Amino acid sequence: MTLILSNDDVERLLTIEDCIEALDEGYREIGEGRAGNRTRSDIITPTIHEGGLYALKSMDGVIPKQKVAAIRINSDILTWEMKAGNRVRVKKPAAPGERYVGLVLLFSTDTGEPLAIFPDGVMQRMRVAATSALGVKLLARKNAKTVALLGAGWQAGSQAMAVCAVRDIEEIRVYSPTPATREAFCREMANQVSARLTPMSSPEAAVKGADIVLCATNSLGAVFKADWVEPGMHLGSIKPAELEAAAVAMAAVAVTHYHDNEPTIIRTHVDPAKEDKHGVRHEPTGIDESAMPTLPDLILGRVKGRGSDSEITAFLNHAGLGYQFAVCGAALLKKAQAAKAGNDLPTEWFTEDVHP
Amino acid sequence: MTLILSNDDVERLLTIEDCIEALDEGYREIGEGRAGNRTRSDIITPTIHEGGLYALKSMDGVIPKQKVAAIRINSDILTWEMKAGNRVRVKKPAAPGERYVGLVLLFSTDTGEPLAIFPDGVMQRMRVAATSALGVKLLARKNAKTVALLGAGWQAGSQAMAVCAVRDIEEIRVYSPTPATREAFCREMANQVSARLTPMSSPEAAVKGADIVLCATNSLGAVFKADWVEPGMHLGSIKPAELEAAAVAMAAVAVTHYHDNEPTIIRTHVDPAKEDKHGVRHEPTGIDESAMPTLPDLILGRVKGRGSDSEITAFLNHAGLGYQFAVCGAALLKKAQAAKAGNDLPTEWFTEDVHP
Repeated sequence: MTLILSNDDVERLLTIEDCIEALDEGYREIGEGRAGNRTRSDIITPTIHEGGLYALKSMDGVIPKQKVAAIRINSDILTWEMKAGNRVRVKKPAAPGERYVGLVLLFSTDTGEPLAIFPDGVMQRMRVAATSALGVKLLARKNAKTVALLGAGWQAGSQAMAVCAVRDIEEIRVYSPTPATREAFCREMANQVSARLTPMSSPEAAVKGADIVLCATNSLGAVFKADWVEPGMHLGSIKPAELEAAAVAMAAVAVTHYHDNEPTIIRTHVDPAKEDKHGVRHEPTGIDESAMPTLPDLILGRVKGRGSDSEITAFLNHAGLGYQFAVCGAALLKKAQAAKAGNDLPTEWFTEDVHP
Repeated sequence: MTLILSNDDVERLLTIEDCIEALDEGYREIGEGRAGNRTRSDIITPTIHEGGLYALKSMDGVIPKQKVAAIRINSDILTWEMKAGNRVRVKKPAAPGERYVGLVLLFSTDTGEPLAIFPDGVMQRMRVAATSALGVKLLARKNAKTVALLGAGWQAGSQAMAVCAVRDIEEIRVYSPTPATREAFCREMANQVSARLTPMSSPEAAVKGADIVLCATNSLGAVFKADWVEPGMHLGSIKPAELEAAAVAMAAVAVTHYHDNEPTIIRTHVDPAKEDKHGVRHEPTGIDESAMPTLPDLILGRVKGRGSDSEITAFLNHAGLGYQFAVCGAALLKKAQAAKAGNDLPTEWFTEDVHP
């Protein structure tokens, strides 16, 4: 049977600790050449939506140790908006019922069969946060107690959970430009993490004295400035421009998620002027991630981590891997099968007796 | 609703003429830069099957004019066998019920929603044959009556149907090394094409006097020799080595399907010696397809076709495009919706209210 799981199933079954543990193994496997990742590709075309573009995005990965292959697919209507002076990309939920379209398909490397199909939304943020958490685990001070969280959206929620899974965090200070947003975030996350959540009225106030700074925005500009760096801080970002380049340059150890991960972008009949206006391309950040060691290097001990409690460290977690969905998908599948969760569909619907 | 279609549905609904017509438009669109294709990628890893490898293959394409995006996914157990002196790759039907795993997912460029999911097998051979047929239509002699078909497998069947859709063919002479195979093929295809089907005991006998030679094998070696070329012949191949390089060199007009179509292959923990032994890599054919014009060039009139009835022409149709599945998928979808075919699943199963 092919298992159809919902985002609710994923949220109920898969913990952030599961993802951190699975990814720790996963990065060891791929770091030693025993697993495969195919870099993301986007095909970008016109759509009927005013000022918008259509994007078909796909990424693949295989973890033979867990006997799972995954493909993640996004079928997005993209628009761009100004938010607090920054130009941000906004996905429009244009599918029936105002829904987004992101899917993960898992396959068996032993039989080829489709094992499961589920939406990508919950796992998407869990694998980002679990990856950031591995950076915190290996780079932040052991005695880190205070986190500054810049951003109060979907990604910020899982960053809060993930950082608490790897350090004994007492307080998370949350900044987001809109007061109501940061206050609602602190209320909603209160029962999901043991740390105290405090909404802050400025990013400077949030980061002052923090042991760990986590940026979790959708911003195309810097949200953390070099002037705010303090000795011993660990800095984390999930978008290339979030940390000002001068801040990253102050790090004794700066690690990037993964190399050779530039997406392949196929643009179709898109006026380049229009595309620039809409901000498909990121501005250069001035940070050379290609010169940094990667998370697999760090996990496998190929590079040294933090040398002292006063050093600055940074982990840049910008481009996702299809492989993360194979790794976290394998962990999800085990728990879903054990819990007999989801809806089974006949595998015959997704296989064939015809030679393809 | 998201439409689940079977190979039987595809076979019943979609004609080879539909595919030829849709692809003719599709190549115009992509040739003029109004459509997008993402080249195939394979991740190749170990599997439990003795002497085999696992491969996750994916390819994407979008045809904005038809408002359809497609991704095609194959999850294959690959093995290699010697057949008639040639080493051929054999996909093992290892999924439950001895089935193969190939899927096409169609999405809307207007809403992003998943429109349909169906196995790739029937469409796979139809788009290959319809593409070859466009080569025949534009390059073969108008008065071509006799076809030599080298191969009697799954691809050969659709090549027979497709060539009859673009020329008034009287006889198809079929060669395949095993007498029972070629005889069964001729019997089985008799009610699918109006041309007479004749099993032949040697490739030389099949091609002698033929107006059109179509290779439709899975061979990694040459199946048509330069010595057999006759004036006015049109030559077609679906695998890089099928036509001997010297035969292609005799063509006044030689056209390749598409450029920049080299798949991205990610190999994982596969012993290179073992991989060579298993023949994942094709031997160099001595044919430089990168110097040839493409099918879109030919369709758009950017290159001249056949100059006289005595010229040799060749069409090399080797690497498939995800885009072909978007183009033929759009044609299938119209017919499936009109016929109210297939099983509807709730679109909500494949969409989400969570921002991915």
